[in-house]
Amino acid sequence: MKPIGVFDSGVGGLTVVKELINQLPYEDIIYFGDTARVPYGIKSKETVIRFSIENILFLLKQDVKLVCVACNTASSQAIPAIRNHFRIPIIGVISPGVREAVYATQNKRIGIIGTKGTIKSCAYELEIKQLDPKIRVTVAACPLFVPFVEEGWLRGEVVRTVASLYLKPLKDAKVDTIILGCTHYPLLKPLIRQVMGDNITLIDSAKQVAVEIKKILAVEGTLNKGRKGKQKFYVSDNPEWFSNLAKRFLGRPIKDAKKV
Amino acid sequence: MKPIGVFDSGVGGLTVVKELINQLPYEDIIYFGDTARVPYGIKSKETVIRFSIENILFLLKQDVKLVCVACNTASSQAIPAIRNHFRIPIIGVISPGVREAVYATQNKRIGIIGTKGTIKSCAYELEIKQLDPKIRVTVAACPLFVPFVEEGWLRGEVVRTVASLYLKPLKDAKVDTIILGCTHYPLLKPLIRQVMGDNITLIDSAKQVAVEIKKILAVEGTLNKGRKGKQKFYVSDNPEWFSNLAKRFLGRPIKDAKKV
Repeated sequence: MKPIGVFDSGVGGLTVVKELINQLPYEDIIYFGDTARVPYGIKSKETVIRFSIENILFLLKQDVKLVCVACNTASSQAIPAIRNHFRIPIIGVISPGVREAVYATQNKRIGIIGTKGTIKSCAYELEIKQLDPKIRVTVAACPLFVPFVEEGWLRGEVVRTVASLYLKPLKDAKVDTIILGCTHYPLLKPLIRQVMGDNITLIDSAKQVAVEIKKILAVEGTLNKGRKGKQKFYVSDNPEWFSNLAKRFLGRPIKDAKKV
Repeated sequence: MKPIGVFDSGVGGLTVVKELINQLPYEDIIYFGDTARVPYGIKSKETVIRFSIENILFLLKQDVKLVCVACNTASSQAIPAIRNHFRIPIIGVISPGVREAVYATQNKRIGIIGTKGTIKSCAYELEIKQLDPKIRVTVAACPLFVPFVEEGWLRGEVVRTVASLYLKPLKDAKVDTIILGCTHYPLLKPLIRQVMGDNITLIDSAKQVAVEIKKILAVEGTLNKGRKGKQKFYVSDNPEWFSNLAKRFLGRPIKDAKKV
């Protein structure tokens, strides 16, 4: 049976791969990390669309049955524009997180954090408002979070101070639920909880994305079964850097990432 | 007369343009910022070489008489490999800074700070050792400095704490001279001085690069004269982001950067 294709600007999408392995253990997965052009968060919509199309074309050559855009910047900026160009399902990370957050909030105040590109796109707000126009949404771009995670700075004085600054508008708005709108941010969960308090609900889209993909494959009758799935990892640059960071995101080491 | 070509991975090379305008006011300058693929500092040598060749080819189409590689990562990783492929002079930012530092140090202890790519290349150490094998060199990669500068975080508790951590090995080694091995770092001069003390000599390559280019053009007989030079700015993405940041690096606003 055909594999599931997953792409991200770099290494962050591995948090989604981790959930796919958990929830769909029989599926083969082809991952592409665009490490030669990472990060996407600071780039224009037009450029993010172009890169996304190129990445999908690469995955189609590997004969995938579904593409998961495991990058919030690409999901928010490119998916609406490109989804209809392809015959296979293109699944992003925005909608699953939104549904979960709308379901989770008690006081109808949701916070969104992400890269500048994701926040500027307003993709999360638009989807939340469609589901429930009464929900109050507060957003905050956190541009230093990605470099912190990639440097392995997940705790300590410096990161906590920056997090307090970034999250202040969300605290002031008394949100009870925050969507982690970037695949890197789940690694900062303990820190964000420390700043926002223990009662905050943190929505990590990866889990919900895997649930959605499972549903779609079931409906299409293309779920794999019978033998344990395999993963292949491709990158556009720096396979060693990718493999080193991979462990942090995937929770286990990667044998070898292939440069294409 | 033909213009001078300058390229950088993004906006940092404008610190060199600023010095060229100061020291060579009659020269026309064509600047290319590869903002679609920024940053170079985390990418492999092979990829940096490929990007650099593409950037030089773009500048050659604009009929430049000399190319300045105003990016330390590209200078250290690509120039040795590509210099001989081109007929016009290709000038990097490593050698001018090295000569200045070797001249400036009193205690023969020099520190180098830069991106991971620049530090890993050992380009500075090799050039210093060639000039004076007795000089003790201490290096430190400072990967968070570029995001800090691009976010406009040039002072304050957070940046000072990070700088103290990064610069500790240089302080312990009692260097009296530091080469700012990245075009972004001159904006952090006051902070670095605060951490290292007032007696530290900070070598900002931009000035020396302009001196070197002036010499080469004089020797080749291609110096411009007579009328004030013009500058043209091209980027591969995000012209607004570039123009906004440009003021910080160039010391004056840019009318319009053209996307190519």
